[in-house]
Amino acid sequence: MRIYLEDTDPGGIVYYVNYLKFMERARTEFMRSLGFDRSATFNNASMFVVRDLAVRYLSPAFLDDEIRVTASVANVKGASIGMRQNIFRGESELVDASLSLVWVNRQNLMPCRLSKEMRLALRPDIFDTI
Amino acid sequence: MRIYLEDTDPGGIVYYVNYLKFMERARTEFMRSLGFDRSATFNNASMFVVRDLAVRYLSPAFLDDEIRVTASVANVKGASIGMRQNIFRGESELVDASLSLVWVNRQNLMPCRLSKEMRLALRPDIFDTI
Amino acid sequence: MRIYLEDTDPGGIVYYVNYLKFMERARTEFMRSLGFDRSATFNNASMFVVRDLAVRYLSPAFLDDEIRVTASVANVKGASIGMRQNIFRGESELVDASLSLVWVNRQNLMPCRLSKEMRLALRPDIFDTI
Amino acid sequence: MRIYLEDTDPGGIVYYVNYLKFMERARTEFMRSLGFDRSATFNNASMFVVRDLAVRYLSPAFLDDEIRVTASVANVKGASIGMRQNIFRGESELVDASLSLVWVNRQNLMPCRLSKEMRLALRPDIFDTI
Repeated sequence: MRIYLEDTDPGGIVYYVNYLKFMERARTEFMRSLGFDRSATFNNASMFVVRDLAVRYLSPAFLDDEIRVTASVANVKGASIGMRQNIFRGESELVDASLSLVWVNRQNLMPCRLSKEMRLALRPDIFDTI
Repeated sequence: MRIYLEDTDPGGIVYYVNYLKFMERARTEFMRSLGFDRSATFNNASMFVVRDLAVRYLSPAFLDDEIRVTASVANVKGASIGMRQNIFRGESELVDASLSLVWVNRQNLMPCRLSKEMRLALRPDIFDTI
Repeated sequence: MRIYLEDTDPGGIVYYVNYLKFMERARTEFMRSLGFDRSATFNNASMFVVRDLAVRYLSPAFLDDEIRVTASVANVKGASIGMRQNIFRGESELVDASLSLVWVNRQNLMPCRLSKEMRLALRPDIFDTI
Repeated sequence: MRIYLEDTDPGGIVYYVNYLKFMERARTEFMRSLGFDRSATFNNASMFVVRDLAVRYLSPAFLDDEIRVTASVANVKGASIGMRQNIFRGESELVDASLSLVWVNRQNLMPCRLSKEMRLALRPDIFDTI
Protein backbone atom coordinates (compact mmCIF):
# COMPACT_ATOMS: atom_id res chain seq x y z
CA MET A 1 0.00 0.00 0.00
CA ARG A 2 1.09 3.51 -0.71
CA ILE A 3 0.96 6.31 1.88
CA TYR A 4 -1.04 9.26 0.60
CA LEU A 5 -1.63 12.77 1.91
CA GLU A 6 -4.86 11.65 3.56
CA ASP A 7 -2.85 9.34 5.83
CA THR A 8 -0.33 11.78 7.20
CA ASP A 9 -0.39 14.45 9.86
CA PRO A 10 1.44 17.76 10.26
CA GLY A 11 4.38 15.85 11.70
CA GLY A 12 4.86 14.54 8.14
CA ILE A 13 4.31 10.98 9.33
CA VAL A 14 1.34 8.66 9.23
CA TYR A 15 -1.22 9.63 11.84
CA TYR A 16 -1.21 6.84 14.43
CA VAL A 17 -4.87 6.11 13.84
CA ASN A 18 -4.47 5.38 10.17
CA TYR A 19 -2.27 2.32 10.56
CA LEU A 20 -5.40 0.63 11.86
CA LYS A 21 -7.14 1.34 8.58
CA PHE A 22 -4.28 -0.33 6.74
CA MET A 23 -4.61 -3.32 9.03
CA GLU A 24 -8.32 -3.63 8.33
CA ARG A 25 -7.61 -3.55 4.56
CA ALA A 26 -5.10 -6.36 5.04
CA ARG A 27 -7.53 -8.44 7.10
CA THR A 28 -10.15 -8.04 4.42
CA GLU A 29 -7.74 -9.25 1.73
CA PHE A 30 -6.56 -12.07 4.00
CA MET A 31 -10.12 -13.32 4.41
CA ARG A 32 -10.73 -12.95 0.69
CA SER A 33 -7.63 -15.05 0.00
CA LEU A 34 -9.19 -17.81 2.10
CA GLY A 35 -12.35 -17.70 0.04
CA PHE A 36 -14.38 -15.46 2.35
CA ASP A 37 -15.40 -12.36 0.51
CA ARG A 38 -17.24 -9.52 2.11
CA SER A 39 -20.60 -11.27 2.10
CA ALA A 40 -19.02 -13.99 4.25
CA THR A 41 -17.42 -11.65 6.76
CA PHE A 42 -19.96 -8.85 6.94
CA ASN A 43 -23.51 -9.65 6.03
CA ASN A 44 -27.07 -9.00 7.12
CA ALA A 45 -26.85 -11.57 9.90
CA SER A 46 -23.35 -11.25 11.32
CA MET A 47 -20.13 -9.31 11.25
CA PHE A 48 -16.73 -9.20 12.89
CA VAL A 49 -16.03 -6.52 15.46
CA VAL A 50 -12.71 -5.75 17.09
CA ARG A 51 -12.75 -6.58 20.80
CA ASP A 52 -9.14 -6.05 21.85
CA LEU A 53 -6.25 -4.33 20.23
CA ALA A 54 -2.62 -3.89 21.19
CA VAL A 55 -0.31 -1.89 18.96
CA ARG A 56 3.37 -1.14 19.26
CA TYR A 57 4.60 1.64 17.00
CA LEU A 58 8.24 0.95 16.27
CA SER A 59 9.06 3.40 13.52
CA PRO A 60 6.96 5.82 11.49
CA ALA A 61 5.89 5.63 7.85
CA PHE A 62 6.24 8.75 5.74
CA LEU A 63 4.33 10.27 2.86
CA ASP A 64 4.80 8.25 -0.34
CA ASP A 65 6.25 5.20 1.40
CA GLU A 66 5.22 1.82 0.14
CA ILE A 67 4.32 -0.43 3.00
CA ARG A 68 3.39 -4.08 3.37
CA VAL A 69 0.81 -5.18 5.91
CA THR A 70 0.59 -8.77 7.09
CA ALA A 71 -2.22 -10.66 8.76
CA SER A 72 -2.04 -14.07 10.35
CA VAL A 73 -4.24 -16.07 12.66
CA ALA A 74 -2.92 -16.62 16.18
CA ASN A 75 -5.86 -18.60 17.54
CA VAL A 76 -9.47 -19.46 16.83
CA LYS A 77 -12.12 -19.84 19.51
CA GLY A 78 -15.80 -20.57 19.24
CA ALA A 79 -16.87 -17.03 18.44
CA SER A 80 -13.64 -15.15 18.04
CA ILE A 81 -10.25 -15.17 16.39
CA GLY A 82 -6.95 -13.77 17.51
CA MET A 83 -4.78 -12.18 14.86
CA ARG A 84 -1.29 -10.84 14.57
CA GLN A 85 -0.53 -8.04 12.13
CA ASN A 86 2.69 -6.30 11.22
CA ILE A 87 3.52 -3.40 8.96
CA PHE A 88 6.82 -3.21 7.12
CA ARG A 89 8.60 -0.79 4.83
CA GLY A 90 11.16 -2.88 3.04
CA GLU A 91 12.81 -4.88 5.79
CA SER A 92 11.99 -2.41 8.57
CA GLU A 93 9.18 -3.32 10.88
CA LEU A 94 7.07 -0.26 11.60
CA VAL A 95 4.14 -1.63 13.57
CA ASP A 96 3.50 -4.79 15.56
CA ALA A 97 -0.11 -5.44 16.50
CA SER A 98 -2.31 -8.14 17.88
CA LEU A 99 -6.05 -8.06 18.05
CA SER A 100 -9.05 -10.21 18.77
CA LEU A 101 -12.11 -10.15 16.58
CA VAL A 102 -15.51 -11.37 17.69
CA TRP A 103 -18.16 -12.67 15.33
CA VAL A 104 -21.41 -11.01 16.39
CA ASN A 105 -25.06 -11.02 15.50
CA ARG A 106 -25.81 -7.72 13.75
CA GLN A 107 -29.15 -7.23 15.50
CA ASN A 108 -28.07 -7.53 19.12
CA LEU A 109 -24.27 -7.40 18.72
CA MET A 110 -23.94 -10.56 20.84
CA PRO A 111 -21.19 -13.04 20.00
CA CYS A 112 -22.28 -15.96 17.87
CA ARG A 113 -20.51 -19.14 16.89
CA LEU A 114 -18.23 -19.07 13.87
CA SER A 115 -19.19 -21.53 11.17
CA LYS A 116 -17.18 -24.74 11.06
CA GLU A 117 -16.19 -23.80 7.51
CA MET A 118 -14.65 -20.56 8.69
CA ARG A 119 -12.88 -22.11 11.64
CA LEU A 120 -11.42 -24.79 9.40
CA ALA A 121 -10.24 -22.29 6.84
CA LEU A 122 -8.68 -20.06 9.44
CA ARG A 123 -6.92 -22.96 11.16
CA PRO A 124 -6.93 -26.04 8.96
CA ASP A 125 -4.57 -27.74 11.39
CA ILE A 126 -7.11 -27.81 14.19
CA PHE A 127 -9.57 -29.89 12.20
CA ASP A 128 -9.59 -32.73 14.69
CA THR A 129 -10.52 -30.61 17.61
CA ILE A 130 -13.62 -29.00 16.15
CA MET B 1 -18.62 14.67 21.58
CA ARG B 2 -21.31 13.75 19.15
CA ILE B 3 -21.08 10.75 16.79
CA TYR B 4 -21.55 11.82 13.17
CA LEU B 5 -21.95 9.93 9.91
CA GLU B 6 -18.22 10.28 9.23
CA ASP B 7 -17.51 8.16 12.32
CA THR B 8 -19.71 5.16 11.61
CA ASP B 9 -19.43 2.15 9.37
CA PRO B 10 -21.98 0.03 7.52
CA GLY B 11 -22.54 -1.91 10.74
CA GLY B 12 -24.21 1.28 12.00
CA ILE B 13 -21.64 1.57 14.78
CA VAL B 14 -18.52 3.63 15.19
CA TYR B 15 -15.68 2.24 13.09
CA TYR B 16 -13.10 0.86 15.54
CA VAL B 17 -10.42 3.18 14.25
CA ASN B 18 -12.33 6.34 14.96
CA TYR B 19 -12.41 5.97 18.73
CA LEU B 20 -8.71 6.72 18.57
CA LYS B 21 -9.46 10.06 16.96
CA PHE B 22 -11.79 10.87 19.82
CA MET B 23 -9.05 9.95 22.28
CA GLU B 24 -6.59 12.25 20.55
CA ARG B 25 -9.10 15.12 20.75
CA ALA B 26 -9.48 14.47 24.48
CA ARG B 27 -5.71 14.36 25.04
CA THR B 28 -5.38 17.69 23.27
CA GLU B 29 -8.03 19.27 25.47
CA PHE B 30 -6.49 17.69 28.56
CA MET B 31 -3.12 19.23 27.76
CA ARG B 32 -4.78 22.56 27.02
CA SER B 33 -6.51 22.43 30.41
CA LEU B 34 -3.07 22.13 32.01
CA GLY B 35 -1.88 25.22 30.19
CA PHE B 36 -0.13 23.47 27.29
CA ASP B 37 -1.70 24.56 24.06
CA ARG B 38 -0.73 23.14 20.72
CA SER B 39 2.47 25.12 20.45
CA ALA B 40 3.62 23.44 23.66
CA THR B 41 2.75 19.90 22.59
CA PHE B 42 3.49 20.02 18.88
CA ASN B 43 5.96 22.56 17.66
CA ASN B 44 8.85 22.99 15.28
CA ALA B 45 11.26 21.28 17.65
CA SER B 46 9.32 18.47 19.27
CA MET B 47 6.07 16.55 19.29
CA PHE B 48 4.38 13.66 21.04
CA VAL B 49 4.05 10.38 19.20
CA VAL B 50 2.14 7.31 20.33
CA ARG B 51 4.49 4.43 21.13
CA ASP B 52 2.15 1.80 22.59
CA LEU B 53 -1.56 1.43 22.58
CA ALA B 54 -3.91 -1.10 24.16
CA VAL B 55 -7.62 -0.78 23.60
CA ARG B 56 -10.49 -2.86 24.91
CA TYR B 57 -13.77 -2.29 23.10
CA LEU B 58 -16.53 -3.04 25.59
CA SER B 59 -19.63 -1.80 23.84
CA PRO B 60 -20.21 0.13 20.62
CA ALA B 61 -21.25 3.74 20.13
CA PHE B 62 -23.96 4.46 17.58
CA LEU B 63 -24.72 7.28 15.21
CA ASP B 64 -25.88 10.40 17.08
CA ASP B 65 -24.72 9.20 20.48
CA GLU B 66 -23.15 11.72 22.79
CA ILE B 67 -20.02 10.35 24.32
CA ARG B 68 -17.57 11.51 26.96
CA VAL B 69 -13.88 10.81 26.61
CA THR B 70 -11.55 10.95 29.59
CA ALA B 71 -7.77 11.31 29.77
CA SER B 72 -5.60 10.89 32.82
CA VAL B 73 -1.92 10.46 33.44
CA ALA B 74 -0.79 7.07 34.70
CA ASN B 75 2.93 7.78 34.89
CA VAL B 76 5.59 10.21 33.72
CA LYS B 77 9.08 9.19 32.73
CA GLY B 78 11.95 11.22 31.39
CA ALA B 79 10.79 11.30 27.79
CA SER B 80 7.39 9.69 27.88
CA ILE B 81 4.06 9.63 29.62
CA GLY B 82 1.62 6.82 30.19
CA MET B 83 -2.06 7.69 29.89
CA ARG B 84 -5.34 6.01 30.58
CA GLN B 85 -8.39 6.93 28.51
CA ASN B 86 -11.98 5.81 28.70
CA ILE B 87 -15.01 6.50 26.60
CA PHE B 88 -18.49 6.58 28.11
CA ARG B 89 -22.04 7.03 26.91
CA GLY B 90 -23.95 8.09 29.98
CA GLU B 91 -22.87 5.62 32.63
CA SER B 92 -21.87 2.88 30.18
CA GLU B 93 -18.21 2.39 29.56
CA LEU B 94 -17.61 1.78 25.87
CA VAL B 95 -13.84 1.79 25.55
CA ASP B 96 -10.95 1.31 27.97
CA ALA B 97 -7.54 2.26 26.64
CA SER B 98 -4.03 2.84 27.84
CA LEU B 99 -1.23 4.29 25.82
CA SER B 100 2.27 5.63 26.09
CA LEU B 101 3.36 8.81 24.38
CA VAL B 102 6.94 9.69 23.67
CA TRP B 103 8.22 13.23 23.33
CA VAL B 104 10.44 13.24 20.23
CA ASN B 105 12.66 15.58 18.30
CA ARG B 106 10.87 16.42 15.05
CA GLN B 107 13.99 16.21 12.92
CA ASN B 108 15.24 12.77 13.86
CA LEU B 109 12.20 11.43 15.73
CA MET B 110 14.42 10.42 18.65
CA PRO B 111 13.07 10.68 22.20
CA CYS B 112 14.01 13.81 24.04
CA ARG B 113 13.56 14.83 27.65
CA LEU B 114 10.28 16.39 28.71
CA SER B 115 10.62 19.84 30.22
CA LYS B 116 10.49 20.01 33.99
CA GLU B 117 7.49 22.32 33.61
CA MET B 118 5.58 19.69 31.70
CA ARG B 119 6.51 16.87 34.04
CA LEU B 120 5.41 18.94 37.00
CA ALA B 121 2.12 19.86 35.43
CA LEU B 122 1.38 16.30 34.41
CA ARG B 123 2.23 14.94 37.87
CA PRO B 124 2.36 17.74 40.42
CA ASP B 125 2.64 15.14 43.18
CA ILE B 126 6.02 13.96 42.03
CA PHE B 127 7.61 17.36 42.49
CA ASP B 128 10.13 16.11 45.00
CA THR B 129 11.47 13.41 42.80
CA ILE B 130 12.29 15.57 39.83
CA MET C 1 -15.60 23.26 16.03
CA ARG C 2 -11.99 22.82 16.87
CA ILE C 3 -9.38 21.65 14.34
CA TYR C 4 -7.52 18.57 15.61
CA LEU C 5 -4.51 16.65 14.36
CA GLU C 6 -6.78 14.19 12.57
CA ASP C 7 -7.98 17.02 10.32
CA THR C 8 -4.67 18.38 9.12
CA ASP C 9 -2.15 17.30 6.54
CA PRO C 10 1.63 17.66 6.28
CA GLY C 11 1.11 21.15 4.90
CA GLY C 12 -0.01 22.04 8.44
CA ILE C 13 -3.44 23.00 7.14
CA VAL C 14 -6.77 21.22 7.07
CA TYR C 15 -6.81 18.54 4.39
CA TYR C 16 -9.25 19.75 1.73
CA VAL C 17 -11.43 16.69 2.15
CA ASN C 18 -12.08 17.26 5.82
CA TYR C 19 -13.97 20.52 5.43
CA LEU C 20 -16.73 18.38 3.96
CA LYS C 21 -16.91 16.41 7.20
CA PHE C 22 -17.36 19.64 9.09
CA MET C 23 -20.13 20.63 6.70
CA GLU C 24 -21.93 17.33 7.26
CA ARG C 25 -21.73 17.85 11.03
CA ALA C 26 -23.27 21.30 10.61
CA ARG C 27 -26.07 19.97 8.38
CA THR C 28 -26.88 17.34 10.98
CA GLU C 29 -27.12 19.97 13.71
CA PHE C 30 -29.12 22.25 11.43
CA MET C 31 -31.68 19.51 10.83
CA ARG C 32 -31.74 18.71 14.52
CA SER C 33 -32.44 22.38 15.31
CA LEU C 34 -35.51 22.13 13.07
CA GLY C 35 -36.76 19.13 15.00
CA PHE C 36 -35.45 16.44 12.65
CA ASP C 37 -33.11 14.19 14.54
CA ARG C 38 -31.17 11.42 12.93
CA SER C 39 -34.13 9.05 12.75
CA ALA C 40 -35.90 11.64 10.61
CA THR C 41 -33.01 12.24 8.21
CA PHE C 42 -31.46 8.79 8.02
CA ASN C 43 -33.67 5.83 8.75
CA ASN C 44 -34.48 2.36 7.55
CA ALA C 45 -36.60 3.67 4.70
CA SER C 46 -34.85 6.77 3.44
CA MET C 47 -31.79 8.93 3.69
CA PHE C 48 -30.24 12.04 2.21
CA VAL C 49 -27.41 11.66 -0.26
CA VAL C 50 -25.30 14.44 -1.73
CA ARG C 51 -25.92 14.82 -5.45
CA ASP C 52 -23.91 17.93 -6.34
CA LEU C 53 -21.25 19.83 -4.56
CA ALA C 54 -19.34 23.00 -5.37
CA VAL C 55 -16.69 24.25 -2.99
CA ARG C 56 -14.51 27.30 -3.12
CA TYR C 57 -11.57 27.24 -0.74
CA LEU C 58 -10.75 30.84 0.12
CA SER C 59 -8.28 30.51 2.96
CA PRO C 60 -7.00 27.56 4.98
CA ALA C 61 -7.78 26.56 8.55
CA PHE C 62 -4.85 25.58 10.76
CA LEU C 63 -4.36 23.14 13.59
CA ASP C 64 -6.14 24.31 16.76
CA ASP C 65 -8.27 26.91 15.00
CA GLU C 66 -11.82 27.29 16.14
CA ILE C 67 -14.14 27.47 13.18
CA ARG C 68 -17.82 28.10 12.68
CA VAL C 69 -19.77 26.27 10.00
CA THR C 70 -23.09 27.54 8.73
CA ALA C 71 -25.89 25.79 6.89
CA SER C 72 -28.86 27.38 5.21
CA VAL C 73 -31.48 26.25 2.76
CA ALA C 74 -31.33 27.75 -0.71
CA ASN C 75 -34.27 25.90 -2.23
CA VAL C 76 -36.54 22.94 -1.71
CA LYS C 77 -37.83 20.75 -4.50
CA GLY C 78 -39.99 17.66 -4.39
CA ALA C 79 -37.22 15.23 -3.55
CA SER C 80 -34.22 17.42 -2.96
CA ILE C 81 -32.93 20.46 -1.18
CA GLY C 82 -30.29 22.95 -2.13
CA MET C 83 -28.06 24.21 0.65
CA ARG C 84 -25.43 26.87 1.12
CA GLN C 85 -22.67 26.36 3.65
CA ASN C 86 -19.82 28.57 4.76
CA ILE C 87 -16.93 28.10 7.11
CA PHE C 88 -15.51 30.98 9.09
CA ARG C 89 -12.67 31.57 11.51
CA GLY C 90 -13.62 34.69 13.37
CA GLU C 91 -14.67 37.09 10.63
CA SER C 92 -12.63 35.43 7.87
CA GLU C 93 -14.49 33.29 5.42
CA LEU C 94 -12.52 30.13 4.71
CA VAL C 95 -14.87 28.08 2.58
CA ASP C 96 -17.93 28.82 0.48
CA ALA C 97 -19.94 25.79 -0.62
CA SER C 98 -23.24 24.92 -2.17
CA LEU C 99 -24.68 21.48 -2.48
CA SER C 100 -27.82 19.62 -3.37
CA LEU C 101 -29.10 16.74 -1.31
CA VAL C 102 -31.55 14.16 -2.59
CA TRP C 103 -33.89 12.20 -0.39
CA VAL C 104 -33.66 8.58 -1.55
CA ASN C 105 -35.16 5.22 -0.80
CA ARG C 106 -32.52 3.17 0.99
CA GLN C 107 -33.33 -0.03 -0.88
CA ASN C 108 -33.03 1.18 -4.45
CA LEU C 109 -31.41 4.59 -3.89
CA MET C 110 -34.07 6.22 -6.07
CA PRO C 111 -35.29 9.72 -5.18
CA CYS C 112 -38.47 9.84 -3.19
CA ARG C 113 -40.70 12.72 -2.20
CA LEU C 114 -39.84 14.70 0.90
CA SER C 115 -42.58 14.75 3.50
CA LYS C 116 -44.70 17.89 3.60
CA GLU C 117 -43.59 18.33 7.21
CA MET C 118 -39.97 18.43 6.18
CA ARG C 119 -40.53 20.78 3.26
CA LEU C 120 -42.48 23.14 5.50
CA ALA C 121 -39.82 23.14 8.17
CA LEU C 122 -37.05 23.72 5.69
CA ARG C 123 -38.93 26.56 3.99
CA PRO C 124 -41.79 27.74 6.12
CA ASP C 125 -42.35 30.64 3.74
CA ILE C 126 -43.38 28.41 0.88
CA PHE C 127 -46.35 27.01 2.75
CA ASP C 128 -48.85 28.28 0.23
CA THR C 129 -47.23 26.62 -2.68
CA ILE C 130 -47.13 23.11 -1.30
CA MET D 1 -8.85 0.88 -5.91
CA ARG D 2 -10.88 -1.28 -3.62
CA ILE D 3 -13.61 0.09 -1.33
CA TYR D 4 -12.97 -0.88 2.28
CA LEU D 5 -15.00 -0.56 5.48
CA GLU D 6 -13.21 2.68 6.31
CA ASP D 7 -14.72 4.27 3.20
CA THR D 8 -18.37 3.46 3.74
CA ASP D 9 -21.10 4.88 5.91
CA PRO D 10 -24.14 3.35 7.59
CA GLY D 11 -26.02 3.70 4.32
CA GLY D 12 -23.72 0.93 3.06
CA ILE D 13 -22.29 3.23 0.41
CA VAL D 14 -19.13 5.26 0.17
CA TYR D 15 -19.35 8.36 2.35
CA TYR D 16 -19.47 11.34 -0.03
CA VAL D 17 -16.33 12.82 1.44
CA ASN D 18 -14.17 9.82 0.73
CA TYR D 19 -14.41 10.00 -3.05
CA LEU D 20 -12.23 13.07 -2.72
CA LYS D 21 -9.55 10.99 -1.05
CA PHE D 22 -9.63 8.60 -3.99
CA MET D 23 -9.27 11.54 -6.34
CA GLU D 24 -6.24 12.82 -4.46
CA ARG D 25 -4.63 9.37 -4.69
CA ALA D 26 -5.22 9.39 -8.44
CA ARG D 27 -3.77 12.88 -8.84
CA THR D 28 -0.67 11.80 -6.97
CA GLU D 29 -0.21 8.80 -9.25
CA PHE D 30 -0.92 10.94 -12.31
CA MET D 31 1.83 13.37 -11.34
CA ARG D 32 4.16 10.49 -10.58
CA SER D 33 3.48 9.05 -14.04
CA LEU D 34 4.65 12.38 -15.49
CA GLY D 35 7.88 12.16 -13.55
CA PHE D 36 6.87 14.36 -10.63
CA ASP D 37 7.11 12.41 -7.44
CA ARG D 38 6.06 13.76 -4.10
CA SER D 39 9.16 15.89 -3.65
CA ALA D 40 8.21 17.70 -6.84
CA THR D 41 4.57 18.32 -5.90
CA PHE D 42 4.85 18.83 -2.16
CA ASN D 43 8.13 20.04 -0.77
CA ASN D 44 9.59 22.44 1.73
CA ALA D 45 9.10 25.40 -0.59
CA SER D 46 5.82 24.81 -2.36
CA MET D 47 2.75 22.63 -2.57
CA PHE D 48 -0.51 22.29 -4.46
CA VAL D 49 -3.71 23.28 -2.72
CA VAL D 50 -7.23 22.79 -4.01
CA ARG D 51 -8.88 26.11 -4.78
CA ASP D 52 -12.16 25.09 -6.41
CA LEU D 53 -14.00 21.86 -6.58
CA ALA D 54 -17.20 20.77 -8.31
CA VAL D 55 -18.44 17.24 -7.89
CA ARG D 56 -21.44 15.50 -9.37
CA TYR D 57 -22.32 12.22 -7.68
CA LEU D 58 -24.02 10.07 -10.30
CA SER D 59 -24.21 6.68 -8.65
CA PRO D 60 -22.80 5.27 -5.40
CA ALA D 61 -19.94 2.87 -4.86
CA PHE D 62 -20.50 0.01 -2.42
CA LEU D 63 -18.32 -1.89 0.00
CA ASP D 64 -15.86 -4.15 -1.83
CA ASP D 65 -16.35 -2.50 -5.22
CA GLU D 66 -13.32 -2.04 -7.38
CA ILE D 67 -13.25 1.42 -8.81
CA ARG D 68 -11.10 3.26 -11.32
CA VAL D 69 -10.26 6.92 -10.85
CA THR D 70 -9.06 9.07 -13.72
CA ALA D 71 -7.20 12.36 -13.74
CA SER D 72 -6.60 14.61 -16.70
CA VAL D 73 -5.47 18.17 -17.18
CA ALA D 74 -8.05 20.61 -18.49
CA ASN D 75 -5.91 23.72 -18.50
CA VAL D 76 -2.67 25.15 -17.15
CA LYS D 77 -2.23 28.72 -16.04
CA GLY D 78 0.75 30.49 -14.52
CA ALA D 79 0.22 29.28 -10.98
CA SER D 80 -2.64 26.82 -11.26
CA ILE D 81 -3.97 23.87 -13.15
CA GLY D 82 -7.49 22.78 -13.90
CA MET D 83 -8.21 19.07 -13.73
CA ARG D 84 -11.03 16.75 -14.59
CA GLN D 85 -11.50 13.55 -12.64
CA ASN D 86 -13.98 10.72 -12.99
CA ILE D 87 -14.66 7.61 -11.00
CA PHE D 88 -15.91 4.45 -12.66
CA ARG D 89 -16.98 1.00 -11.58
CA GLY D 90 -16.68 -1.10 -14.70
CA GLU D 91 -18.39 0.96 -17.37
CA SER D 92 -20.58 2.92 -14.95
CA GLU D 93 -19.57 6.44 -14.19
CA LEU D 94 -20.03 7.14 -10.50
CA VAL D 95 -18.53 10.58 -10.03
CA ASP D 96 -17.70 13.47 -12.33
CA ALA D 97 -15.50 16.16 -10.85
CA SER D 98 -13.50 19.17 -11.89
CA LEU D 99 -11.12 21.09 -9.72
CA SER D 100 -8.49 23.76 -9.80
CA LEU D 101 -5.22 23.41 -7.97
CA VAL D 102 -2.99 26.32 -7.08
CA TRP D 103 0.73 26.04 -6.59
CA VAL D 104 1.52 27.97 -3.40
CA ASN D 105 4.48 28.99 -1.31
CA ARG D 106 4.39 26.94 1.88
CA GLN D 107 5.38 29.82 4.12
CA ASN D 108 2.78 32.37 3.16
CA LEU D 109 0.39 30.17 1.13
CA MET D 110 0.49 32.71 -1.72
CA PRO D 111 0.32 31.46 -5.32
CA CYS D 112 3.65 31.10 -7.03
CA ARG D 113 4.54 30.39 -10.64
CA LEU D 114 4.67 26.78 -11.79
CA SER D 115 8.02 25.73 -13.16
CA LYS D 116 8.27 25.64 -16.94
CA GLU D 117 9.16 21.97 -16.64
CA MET D 118 5.91 21.23 -14.87
CA ARG D 119 3.81 23.30 -17.24
CA LEU D 120 5.37 21.56 -20.21
CA ALA D 121 4.83 18.13 -18.74
CA LEU D 122 1.24 18.85 -17.86
CA ARG D 123 0.48 20.29 -21.29
CA PRO D 124 3.21 19.47 -23.77
CA ASP D 125 1.02 20.85 -26.56
CA ILE D 126 1.17 24.38 -25.25
CA PHE D 127 4.92 24.58 -25.57
CA ASP D 128 4.80 27.51 -27.93
CA THR D 129 2.81 29.70 -25.66
CA ILE D 130 5.00 29.45 -22.61
